[in-house]
Amino acid sequence: MALTSEQQQEIEAARTAEGRTRRPTVPALEAMLFQAMPVLDHGFVRVIDYMGDDAAVVQAARVSYGRGTRAANEDRGLIRYLMRHRHSTPFEMCEIKYHVKLPIFVARQWIRHRTANVNEYSARYSILDREFYIPAPEQLAAQSASNRQGRGEVLQGEEAARVLDLLRRDAAQAYDHYVEMLNEDEAGNRIDPSRRGLARELARMNLTLNTYTQWYWKTDLHNLLHFLSLRADPHAQYEIRAYAEAMLRTVEAWVPMVFEAFRDYRMGAVTLSAQMLAVVKRMLAGEAVAQEGSGLSKREWRELMGMLGREG
Amino acid sequence: MALTSEQQQEIEAARTAEGRTRRPTVPALEAMLFQAMPVLDHGFVRVIDYMGDDAAVVQAARVSYGRGTRAANEDRGLIRYLMRHRHSTPFEMCEIKYHVKLPIFVARQWIRHRTANVNEYSARYSILDREFYIPAPEQLAAQSASNRQGRGEVLQGEEAARVLDLLRRDAAQAYDHYVEMLNEDEAGNRIDPSRRGLARELARMNLTLNTYTQWYWKTDLHNLLHFLSLRADPHAQYEIRAYAEAMLRTVEAWVPMVFEAFRDYRMGAVTLSAQMLAVVKRMLAGEAVAQEGSGLSKREWRELMGMLGREG
Amino acid sequence: MALTSEQQQEIEAARTAEGRTRRPTVPALEAMLFQAMPVLDHGFVRVIDYMGDDAAVVQAARVSYGRGTRAANEDRGLIRYLMRHRHSTPFEMCEIKYHVKLPIFVARQWIRHRTANVNEYSARYSILDREFYIPAPEQLAAQSASNRQGRGEVLQGEEAARVLDLLRRDAAQAYDHYVEMLNEDEAGNRIDPSRRGLARELARMNLTLNTYTQWYWKTDLHNLLHFLSLRADPHAQYEIRAYAEAMLRTVEAWVPMVFEAFRDYRMGAVTLSAQMLAVVKRMLAGEAVAQEGSGLSKREWRELMGMLGREG
Amino acid sequence: MALTSEQQQEIEAARTAEGRTRRPTVPALEAMLFQAMPVLDHGFVRVIDYMGDDAAVVQAARVSYGRGTRAANEDRGLIRYLMRHRHSTPFEMCEIKYHVKLPIFVARQWIRHRTANVNEYSARYSILDREFYIPAPEQLAAQSASNRQGRGEVLQGEEAARVLDLLRRDAAQAYDHYVEMLNEDEAGNRIDPSRRGLARELARMNLTLNTYTQWYWKTDLHNLLHFLSLRADPHAQYEIRAYAEAMLRTVEAWVPMVFEAFRDYRMGAVTLSAQMLAVVKRMLAGEAVAQEGSGLSKREWRELMGMLGREG
Repeated sequence: MALTSEQQQEIEAARTAEGRTRRPTVPALEAMLFQAMPVLDHGFVRVIDYMGDDAAVVQAARVSYGRGTRAANEDRGLIRYLMRHRHSTPFEMCEIKYHVKLPIFVARQWIRHRTANVNEYSARYSILDREFYIPAPEQLAAQSASNRQGRGEVLQGEEAARVLDLLRRDAAQAYDHYVEMLNEDEAGNRIDPSRRGLARELARMNLTLNTYTQWYWKTDLHNLLHFLSLRADPHAQYEIRAYAEAMLRTVEAWVPMVFEAFRDYRMGAVTLSAQMLAVVKRMLAGEAVAQEGSGLSKREWRELMGMLGREG
Repeated sequence: MALTSEQQQEIEAARTAEGRTRRPTVPALEAMLFQAMPVLDHGFVRVIDYMGDDAAVVQAARVSYGRGTRAANEDRGLIRYLMRHRHSTPFEMCEIKYHVKLPIFVARQWIRHRTANVNEYSARYSILDREFYIPAPEQLAAQSASNRQGRGEVLQGEEAARVLDLLRRDAAQAYDHYVEMLNEDEAGNRIDPSRRGLARELARMNLTLNTYTQWYWKTDLHNLLHFLSLRADPHAQYEIRAYAEAMLRTVEAWVPMVFEAFRDYRMGAVTLSAQMLAVVKRMLAGEAVAQEGSGLSKREWRELMGMLGREG
Repeated sequence: MALTSEQQQEIEAARTAEGRTRRPTVPALEAMLFQAMPVLDHGFVRVIDYMGDDAAVVQAARVSYGRGTRAANEDRGLIRYLMRHRHSTPFEMCEIKYHVKLPIFVARQWIRHRTANVNEYSARYSILDREFYIPAPEQLAAQSASNRQGRGEVLQGEEAARVLDLLRRDAAQAYDHYVEMLNEDEAGNRIDPSRRGLARELARMNLTLNTYTQWYWKTDLHNLLHFLSLRADPHAQYEIRAYAEAMLRTVEAWVPMVFEAFRDYRMGAVTLSAQMLAVVKRMLAGEAVAQEGSGLSKREWRELMGMLGREG
Repeated sequence: MALTSEQQQEIEAARTAEGRTRRPTVPALEAMLFQAMPVLDHGFVRVIDYMGDDAAVVQAARVSYGRGTRAANEDRGLIRYLMRHRHSTPFEMCEIKYHVKLPIFVARQWIRHRTANVNEYSARYSILDREFYIPAPEQLAAQSASNRQGRGEVLQGEEAARVLDLLRRDAAQAYDHYVEMLNEDEAGNRIDPSRRGLARELARMNLTLNTYTQWYWKTDLHNLLHFLSLRADPHAQYEIRAYAEAMLRTVEAWVPMVFEAFRDYRMGAVTLSAQMLAVVKRMLAGEAVAQEGSGLSKREWRELMGMLGREG
């Protein structure tokens, strides 16, 4: 993560300013506010603002006049009930806003979640920084042999070195030519006074997909949890998962009761199809069930055995 | 507006509690927070929470690291530019949450705006209060003769008295029968111990559409302004307009620069069709244009003359 | 269901007209097209239009140029995979449009699903018909003793008779007074020439919530299945479930492979929390687990035993 | 546009197959169906499916039982009224689905419109084709001097030649290295048997932003018109405007009455702020108004004079 000292100062200035508010506040999240949590080699996630807390979920579910006087364990029980039975609207009553710096190919996966508000840094209007994502050596994986959209073993030796070299050189060369085509230095002056320089909206097309971009991203707690359940999942691509894991820590600080319910009823939960449930019932009745005769395909059988922690 | 003293106490308790926050705060909106602004005979709007301020719009548009150090008039200029050119995403970065008490027929118009989060008081689960909207005498309008979905002159004398009497009596009788069918008093005890009482989810169907309901409603500033531009408009039904006008006052307190731009470029703006623009150009060139030969239908001609403040 | 003969003729005229198209067509759904499927005492659901079929889901998942030449069982396997792993976007590529006649209190539950397009019959502009929902005797249930938002036993004898009488009389009286206040007959003429008549947008507030309304409702297949998974569920209120069940039959005719996958992986599926899964594993290992020491609350324990078809 | 002969055959096969339907059909759009309309150097737009027509907008606005028997000019008048007064829900009742091939930097602008359904070709799962967008010489514009996000004059001579050379070489080299890292030929076999090959989800990050991708994109008519009003506008970047213009032709074929109303009331319309309207009124009253004393900023004054076709 490469924050300039000027950016660091802006962040510190925002952290120092404090005001009084009648709104619910969450000290554990206030402590994190504005600070950049590093992700990947140059990226970050930082919380810019939030609305609501655990009690706001309860308050909305009850449509109540005040903050309520119930015991904490009643609130916890209600939150767990709402999560278990997928009553999603009370969770929509909390909102959070992040500032994220991320490679463009990660941004393209991320933006497929449409129920959020986004303001991205405009490369039509401004010039992007010279920063590219280069995977750490332990992330340099081969194509998975069994899963068409997954990773297999980590590349080693010469092959790994060659890949890193290509990624670094192509990104750097594409960026250098981007600047050459723009014909503009950081201060906005022409580098070569005899040339006009290509329009920014055109020059950007020469950049590689591992170039970093940044955006403000705001969503409600229900949609955030849905995003995290997909993107913090082991099947998600490592690079977006790294962001999801940083965001999970902010959720834990912000709404600890919701986080606990989410962990129990979503992250750690499994869904059994009608046929899978029938197999489990037969097994519980003492029957020795095999894939043949289970009503499950081989793939589903493997998935079920995986859930139950058994050999397939 | 009929808040019980218990509800009033809950509100006061929430207003008294103050905390420290690093988030942007807006003193003018903090002063209003939680207080019920009366609307119609028993309704209200109150702000429950908010996120962001004028500067948050600017910050998102610039995707900046801090709160910025630009002069206030630069921020104002940017906000006006964004509003004028319908760059909506920076306005989506502010969020507000209301608690609203409103007649069911108003709730049915309101809910057609889908880009918001809603938690409504559940008449499947709970018992609604004995409160109905009865129009004030000056709102008791006849059907408009010229506009199929508008109001004409105010009803007078016996006809007005008869209407008020019917509205009052039918609502009261339907509510009394609702309670009789439920067979439940306010404390949840059976009124007639020999009867079971009808399920709440069924009994509610006997209520009239002027019965009050309530909900938590949360939306972002862009969608709020869109809602207000339609519902604070003179063509909106008076009853929902009364709510929109109360909410406009909260927007003015919350984001004064955005409010000013909204007033100038939306509320006070007019849209001219290609044909209307052609007429204006001919008039500015000194030509005396009449409806015949204008390329406008009679209706459009009246609309244009209305915008220009001229006799049709 | 009360269609006038004029409405019936309009429907028949639309059914007779046939055209040629290059778009995918589904004969089983074409056979149903435009016909009103009766629901409740006066309601209906009818399919007005549709886009796509089973193959369109596959085509979108593959982003292919044509309709594909794969074997049907490959398509089926892909659809089941997409459903099992909650890859929702290919299902969004099919769309369906319904015309629905339904009581207002059902419409209020239904509209909470925001990801759909809706055009409702306007009682601001037009006059509603004299039709109210009166439950069949076997639907006249008492409030559930165990579930605050459910039904218990069916009411009998005098109590049932009294409820039906109240529902019928209050709806009829409120409607009659609605017409009296409007002072307008069906042809739009004044009933009493000496009175002006109340504006439609006001008079409607006197109607009871079991009055029928109607709307055009259009959504994509993914959001439709989500709606049906909630509203065809045994926990849904009977009155909306009756609509969901009629719509399930249209889905089965329209996209039979998707329907089969939906039935197996959603309707018939169960979700086990992390703690529930741990209990199942212990039971499969031969341990006799009781609620105490299970890590589950009493309520969750009952839910788990229910899923497994065991005594609690 | 480079369709392989296999792709062309798939398209022809789909065009040949015809069925009978009771749904509304639009012969002018049927004639276009499935055919690829070329856009830019290798891109295209083709209509895959559609739902509804001009009459479907009218039918939804009236919530009617059949297709209606009104005169065509009544339908036209209603459509124009709905468009003029921004009654958007009837337009949401028509739906269209496109298959689009487009450069990634254009896809990134496009996806900011969230109210659509999208299935994009997955570079996590599959290998992208060797196709990049290289602007035509007349599109090779310099940065605008007056507008930070626009284009100025066209580059000439050596500078233009250098830019084209850089764009071509960097894209080709990045793609060649992408294939080398994948170590996979088109048939999916290892190129160098001694190497494993980098996972597809990682290798793609080396591609440049002018690489072509493709997706299925589906939206309703209201949201399509909103997209087109922004993207067919002269202020939109040329490359996305080229797509919007091709799509405008499909709208004209599909819903000619809606298209005409859109052209008159949106594409050709102007919005005057409260202050601008005041200036126009003063001018119409014969006053000679100058920017000073107009209440408009210099920028707004220029905008107004532009609308009125006058010298600033």
